[in-house]
Amino acid sequence: MSKSIAVNAGSSTLKFKLFDMPSENVVAEGTIERIGEKMGHAKIKYDGHKHEDEKPFADHGAAIKYLLDQLIALGIVKSYDEITAVGHRVVAGGEYFKDSAVITDDVIKKIDSLAEYAPLHDPAELLGIKAFKKALPNAFAVAVFDTSFHANMPKKNALYSIPYEWYEKYGARKYGAHGTSHRYVAAQAAKMLGKPLEDLKLITMHIGAGASITAIKNGKSYDTSMGFTPLAGITMATRSGDVDPSLVAFVEEKTGMSSDEMIDTLNHKSGLLGISELSPDMRDILDAADKGNERAQLALDIYVNRIKRYLGAYIAEMDGVDAIVFTAGVGENSIPVRKLITDNMDCFGIKIDQEKNKCHGVQRDLSAPDAKVKTLLIPTNEELMIVRDIERLKKEQAN
Amino acid sequence: MSKSIAVNAGSSTLKFKLFDMPSENVVAEGTIERIGEKMGHAKIKYDGHKHEDEKPFADHGAAIKYLLDQLIALGIVKSYDEITAVGHRVVAGGEYFKDSAVITDDVIKKIDSLAEYAPLHDPAELLGIKAFKKALPNAFAVAVFDTSFHANMPKKNALYSIPYEWYEKYGARKYGAHGTSHRYVAAQAAKMLGKPLEDLKLITMHIGAGASITAIKNGKSYDTSMGFTPLAGITMATRSGDVDPSLVAFVEEKTGMSSDEMIDTLNHKSGLLGISELSPDMRDILDAADKGNERAQLALDIYVNRIKRYLGAYIAEMDGVDAIVFTAGVGENSIPVRKLITDNMDCFGIKIDQEKNKCHGVQRDLSAPDAKVKTLLIPTNEELMIVRDIERLKKEQAN
Repeated sequence: MSKSIAVNAGSSTLKFKLFDMPSENVVAEGTIERIGEKMGHAKIKYDGHKHEDEKPFADHGAAIKYLLDQLIALGIVKSYDEITAVGHRVVAGGEYFKDSAVITDDVIKKIDSLAEYAPLHDPAELLGIKAFKKALPNAFAVAVFDTSFHANMPKKNALYSIPYEWYEKYGARKYGAHGTSHRYVAAQAAKMLGKPLEDLKLITMHIGAGASITAIKNGKSYDTSMGFTPLAGITMATRSGDVDPSLVAFVEEKTGMSSDEMIDTLNHKSGLLGISELSPDMRDILDAADKGNERAQLALDIYVNRIKRYLGAYIAEMDGVDAIVFTAGVGENSIPVRKLITDNMDCFGIKIDQEKNKCHGVQRDLSAPDAKVKTLLIPTNEELMIVRDIERLKKEQAN
Repeated sequence: MSKSIAVNAGSSTLKFKLFDMPSENVVAEGTIERIGEKMGHAKIKYDGHKHEDEKPFADHGAAIKYLLDQLIALGIVKSYDEITAVGHRVVAGGEYFKDSAVITDDVIKKIDSLAEYAPLHDPAELLGIKAFKKALPNAFAVAVFDTSFHANMPKKNALYSIPYEWYEKYGARKYGAHGTSHRYVAAQAAKMLGKPLEDLKLITMHIGAGASITAIKNGKSYDTSMGFTPLAGITMATRSGDVDPSLVAFVEEKTGMSSDEMIDTLNHKSGLLGISELSPDMRDILDAADKGNERAQLALDIYVNRIKRYLGAYIAEMDGVDAIVFTAGVGENSIPVRKLITDNMDCFGIKIDQEKNKCHGVQRDLSAPDAKVKTLLIPTNEELMIVRDIERLKKEQAN
């Protein structure tokens, strides 16, 4: 039996999903948290069981050794060698990585050099890459970038209207994010619609705590709402999305905030939380709005409105759309948010069946019978996309 | 005979248009430039003639006295008293001025207190207001704000997803601009369409060196592309429009630019000029793109794309649109830009007749016979809107 593991390493966390290949069955998944702290926590779910441990993990290497040994102890794999491939999620691939990449020393160097574009993520992901390389030196290792799907976006959509040399010198362009998720649900959407992805115009809405909307034309990312960083675009749980840069400078002057403090506030104290002064969680916002809380209602209205704007903008850019797709936390689970976004979109032929909409986290066509544009609900699965990329790159390398 | 004068005062300039009322015939128009400098310049056009003078103007008061005396000398008016009303363009009216206002001491104080929102404009406009008040103490004086049309915009469109207290404490919201122009062309559009403005959904594109797009629903501004300041929105001659605030902080750090230098660069060295590194003028950009200049082509593509995005966004927000309107420098005069914006918009039923489009600065319905959404060309006339506001406020005050 051959198995592939999809890994998402944070500075003190490690998430994984282990797949039996080529069946794509998940045989185990879990998280190790508080790596490097006094006491860590591990959770492994497998075959209906749950294994938990409280113990310290000195570093990512120790956490990975623990994980692999547990997989054997729990009878999930027989030996290290059974895991023949590792796929790592990497946030920032810059303009360089236009596709997932087989990990080599050069690739590691390149990821290291791109760390300034994702200082909170790339260095931690490198820790995971290096530790797995040590633990499983013979495994086929792949880096799957959040940005690579967007790296080939047409320049007219990727570039800002700023001095061109900022693009040449500092890579100041739109990189977007959630590429693996957008790519996955787009492929699923094509299957649901029974048409080749290459013939479709899609808009995928990955709306969770972080959120982005992507226009996908002929299977390629055509435009996306996140920008140079994941701050831009629509309203998120705590992120502001688009803001007039002059306003930022004005408030800095008024408050005496530094540029760093401002960016921190726009990332962590804005969005639903900033408007409502109540909660970053859409469920809390909906509850409060239901009970007549005006500020929660305003946060909800702004949130929905921003998404509608991007839907319209991307329909304009692509001159039409075949289907729109809801995914991620809010998209998969919030019946009222899906309703509000698709309400009053008759001008585009977008219309959902309110009965079909009464569901959580299932793959389903929500469209009303007379809708001209399909509305689909597709739970995302970035880990599955990662192991599929492994298979694809294996084949490409074999040829 | 009663005459109204529409005035636009800058820090060293004074533009005017003198209307015979209620006929609305323009009897004279012109500019006085380089006020306060060693040598000034005045130009008055009237009845097919042109009067020019090179002479110093110590201040706005001196310029206005000269202007009024010349109007008499040239036989345009018989006495000061014949000018019974003055309408002043004011850039920033904040949230306070939701309509044009009859000028009182309180109004002057209020405009003064709003100067921080338009430091380059409001103080100069106050000079004009005060000087005219002195020269024509009996005239009915009105302030017409660029922002007031947008001041009643729904909160969900006006507010950013930032800490709510920034709105409460610092007035951090979307104010927009070009309100007088958007209002004027919307009224004209309703006339052209033969329908009450209150029953229409319109998108007005004021695209000149500065540019903004406004969604107008039932005669009211529903959303607009400019933001807290006129920096935001679409690509302009030298302004960047929308940019990820994180990118701004990143480039500040890379270059060592101060926040002020950054905002200055985004206002004066970005947009068409910044991308092309060639010219802020759309005519130059079109010429160069025609000759194969890739960067000019990119600037043009980005420019057109941004406008398409906003068209789509506002169609989504209003769930449809009856007509879109081109106005201002580029909108009135650029045949290729109008073509590019309306090309490939079949999904919305927007389609122009390429023959009808071959014109400059005339009021014309450009729509193709099978277009579902009308495309109109309407030359703007902010001065006419200003004197119409004077008449309206006079009547309101009389009642």
